[in-house]
Amino acid sequence: MPTTVQQEDTKPLLDRTLKALEKGSQFEIRNLIHSLYPAETALILESLTAEQRARVWAVIPPNVMGEILVRVHTEVAEGLLKITDRNDLIKAAENLESDDMVDLLQVLPEPLLSQVLESMGVHQRNRLESALAYDDHTAGGLMTLDVLTIRADVTLDVVLRYLRQRGNMPPSTDSLIVVDRNDHFQGILSLETLLTHDGATKVAAVMDTNATSIPYQTPAHDVAILFEQRDILSAPVVTDNGRLMGRITIDDVVDIIREEADHSIMSMAGLDEEQDMFAPVMTSAKRRAVWLGVNLFTAFLASWVIGLFEATLAEIVALAVLMPIVASMGGIAGSQTLTLVVRGLALRQVSGANAGRLLLKELSVGGVNGVLWAVVVALIGGVWFQSASLGLLLGAAMVINLVCAALAGASIPVVLDKVGIDPALAGGVLLTTVTDVIGFMAFLGLATIFLL
Amino acid sequence: MPTTVQQEDTKPLLDRTLKALEKGSQFEIRNLIHSLYPAETALILESLTAEQRARVWAVIPPNVMGEILVRVHTEVAEGLLKITDRNDLIKAAENLESDDMVDLLQVLPEPLLSQVLESMGVHQRNRLESALAYDDHTAGGLMTLDVLTIRADVTLDVVLRYLRQRGNMPPSTDSLIVVDRNDHFQGILSLETLLTHDGATKVAAVMDTNATSIPYQTPAHDVAILFEQRDILSAPVVTDNGRLMGRITIDDVVDIIREEADHSIMSMAGLDEEQDMFAPVMTSAKRRAVWLGVNLFTAFLASWVIGLFEATLAEIVALAVLMPIVASMGGIAGSQTLTLVVRGLALRQVSGANAGRLLLKELSVGGVNGVLWAVVVALIGGVWFQSASLGLLLGAAMVINLVCAALAGASIPVVLDKVGIDPALAGGVLLTTVTDVIGFMAFLGLATIFLL
Repeated sequence: MPTTVQQEDTKPLLDRTLKALEKGSQFEIRNLIHSLYPAETALILESLTAEQRARVWAVIPPNVMGEILVRVHTEVAEGLLKITDRNDLIKAAENLESDDMVDLLQVLPEPLLSQVLESMGVHQRNRLESALAYDDHTAGGLMTLDVLTIRADVTLDVVLRYLRQRGNMPPSTDSLIVVDRNDHFQGILSLETLLTHDGATKVAAVMDTNATSIPYQTPAHDVAILFEQRDILSAPVVTDNGRLMGRITIDDVVDIIREEADHSIMSMAGLDEEQDMFAPVMTSAKRRAVWLGVNLFTAFLASWVIGLFEATLAEIVALAVLMPIVASMGGIAGSQTLTLVVRGLALRQVSGANAGRLLLKELSVGGVNGVLWAVVVALIGGVWFQSASLGLLLGAAMVINLVCAALAGASIPVVLDKVGIDPALAGGVLLTTVTDVIGFMAFLGLATIFLL
Repeated sequence: MPTTVQQEDTKPLLDRTLKALEKGSQFEIRNLIHSLYPAETALILESLTAEQRARVWAVIPPNVMGEILVRVHTEVAEGLLKITDRNDLIKAAENLESDDMVDLLQVLPEPLLSQVLESMGVHQRNRLESALAYDDHTAGGLMTLDVLTIRADVTLDVVLRYLRQRGNMPPSTDSLIVVDRNDHFQGILSLETLLTHDGATKVAAVMDTNATSIPYQTPAHDVAILFEQRDILSAPVVTDNGRLMGRITIDDVVDIIREEADHSIMSMAGLDEEQDMFAPVMTSAKRRAVWLGVNLFTAFLASWVIGLFEATLAEIVALAVLMPIVASMGGIAGSQTLTLVVRGLALRQVSGANAGRLLLKELSVGGVNGVLWAVVVALIGGVWFQSASLGLLLGAAMVINLVCAALAGASIPVVLDKVGIDPALAGGVLLTTVTDVIGFMAFLGLATIFLL
C-alpha cells in the first residue's frame, strides 16, 4: 500500500516525540525517529531543549546524521556536533551529496574538518576543497558537483545504453548536460526529450541550446528568482568562459526561498534566523540585548525631543496624554510604506526609474489618510479636553507626521539598499526614530507656538 | 551559443521597459517583452502604473497572456482583464495547463467565465468545472489534471515505446504514476528508474510503492512542508479511497512558499499581498485606513491610560518625558518573542507539549533583559532628572513591562492560532496594546504611589 500523507502530519510527530521523551522510552523514540525523513527529524530536533535533543540524537544512525546536520539551524548543528562521536561524523559526511557535504564542512570546527577531509579519497578531497572556496550565498556555493554529462555527437540510444549501464543518476536529475571535450557547456538534454524522441536521433539535434546556465558568482537571491520565473528544475553552473562547474537543483532553491523569507521576518525583530529557539537563557538574553540597546537609544532620542518641551507640558498636561497618538499613527503608516518598498526592492520591482512615481503615490496616500484621521483625532481630542484649538493642533500634527512617515518609509529602504545595509533589519528602527521624533516635535512644537 | 544569465538580470529589464515607455516606442517595447519569460513580464507589469501597464499589455500576444495573468497579483490581473479583448482571453485560457487555467478562471468575472467554459470541449469543461470546486488553498486546488499514468503489469520497454509514440510529456514530469484499472494509485515510476533499469523489467518490480500521495483536502501550507522536507519534485493527489485525481508539481509549491512568506510580511503591516503596488491613490488610502483605524483605537486606549494619571503628570513633568521609553522597550522585546513563536507555529515546531517550556524560557529572557536595561535606564533617568527615586521607578516599570511583554508575545500567537486568527496579522497590534497599556500603567502607577 502506498503511504498516504495524513493531515497535520508533523504536529502529532512532535507531540509523540515529546511524549516518548517524557516516558523515557528510548525504544519508542528510536522507532519513531527511524520512520522519519531527515528533514522531519531536523524540525523536531529544533523544537527540543538541549537535554531532550541529546537523547533523540543518541538513537540516530550515523549514516543519516549528515543529512540532519545540514538541515538544522547552524546554532543547533553546532550543539549537536559537540556530542557526536568523531568516527560517526566522518561516516555522516561520507553519505552526503557534494553540496550538502560542503555545507556540513562549513560548520565543522578546524581539527574535525581536517580529519574528515583526510578520510576521503584524493579526488573527492580536491573537488570539495575547491567547492569550499566559493561564497555560500552564490551559485558556486549552492551547486552540487554530481553532474551527468554527455557529448553532443552521440545518439539517444547510446545515451540510453550508457544510463542503463550506469544503473543510477544523481538525485533530482531532470536533464543531462551536454559539454564539449573541454567541458564547455553546450546545452541540455531533458529526460523528456530523451524519452520521447527516436533513438537514432543525435543529441545535437534535440538538445536545448537556449537553456539557462548560471555564472558561479551569481548571488543566491538571483538564482532563486531565475528558478521561480522560468520554472526550472535544475541548471548548470559555469565559469566566466562557459566551462561547466556543477549543477543547482530546485530543492536547494526551495531552501533559499524559505531561508530568505525567514531572514526577513526574523531580522525585522532583530533576530538571527540561525538562532536556536531553545538556546540557553543567558545566550538568548545577551543576543537580544543588542537589539534592545539600539532601540533604547532611539527611545531616549524621542524622550530628549519631549524634554525640549517640558515647560509646555507643565502648562498643558493634556499634551502628554495625546502625544503618543501622533507618534504611533506615524509609525504604523510609515511601516506600511516601508514594507511595500522593501518587498519591491527584493523582487527588483523598484528601481531608480519608478521610485519617484512610487514615492509620489505614497506621499499622496499618506496625505489622504493624514487628513482623514486628522479630522477623527481632532474631534475626539477636542471633545475629550474641551478645547477646539487642542484638537486642531492634534489634527495638524497628524497630517505632518503621516506625510513624513510616507517620505521616510519610501526613502529609507532605497537608501539602505544602495549603501548595502539590509533594509529589513535596519529599516524599522530608523523609521520609528523618524516618526517618533517628528510626531512629538510637530505636536508639542505647534502647541508651544499656538497654545502658550 | 547557450544563454548565460547576466547578473542583475531583472533590474535592467525594468529600467529598459521604463525607458522604452518614456520614449513611446511601441516597437522597442514589443521587442523587449517578446524576449522575456511570462513571469518576468508579470513582475514588470506589476512595477508599472495603470497607464504604462496598458501600453505594455497591448504588445503581448494572446497565447502568453494567460500565463502572465495567473502570475500577477489578483488586483493587477483584474485590471488587465478589463482591457483584454474577449476572444484574446479565450485564446489565452486555452493555452494554459489545467492548474493555471483553474487559477485564471477563478479571477474571471461571471459572463466571461461562462464564455470561456463554453468555448472548450465537453470533456475538458467537465474536468475544469470539477477542479473549480476545490478550495484554492488545498491540494485539490493546486493540482494539475495533466498526468501520465501507466499500469503495473507492463514492461519498461512498453513504457518507453508508449512515450516515444506520445512524443511529449506534461511539463515538470519527473515520474509516471502507476494506477490500477479503477484509477487507484499504486506507486510511482521515476524517470530515473525507467532509464536505468533493464527494458524487460516489469513496472511492478521497480515502482516505488512508498511514494508520498497527498489527499485532496490537505492544506496548501502542509503540501509545501511535505515537498520541502522530502525533496519531492511532484506528487499524486488522491481521493479518500486512493483514487488518482491529479498531480502537484514543485513549481506550484515554490509559488506557495513565496506567497506565504509574502503574506506574513505584508500582513504584519496590515497589507494585502494581492494588492497592486501602483493602485490608484484613493483605493490604497481607503484600504490602509482600516489598519490605521484599528491602531488608532489602541493608541487611544494607551492615551486613556495616561489620562488616568493626569494629576500625577501635572505634578511631575519628567514622567511625561520618560514614559515612552518603558512602552517602546516593551514593544520591541515582546515582538522578538512574538516573531519567534509565530515562526515556530508556522513550521509546526510549537505544540501544546513544548509551549510551556518555551514560555518559561521567554519569561526568563525577558526577566534578564528587564533587569539589565532597568539598571541602564535607572542610571540615565536618575542623572538626567537628578532624582534617584525617579530612576528606580523607571527601572522597576521596565522589568515589569519586559516580563509582561514576554508573556504576551508567547501567548498571544498561540491563542490566536487556536481560535483560527492569523497571528501574523493581529499579533502585532494586540501585543503593542498590551505593552503600551502595561508600560504606561506600571510607570505612572508606581510614580503615583511612591512619588506623590
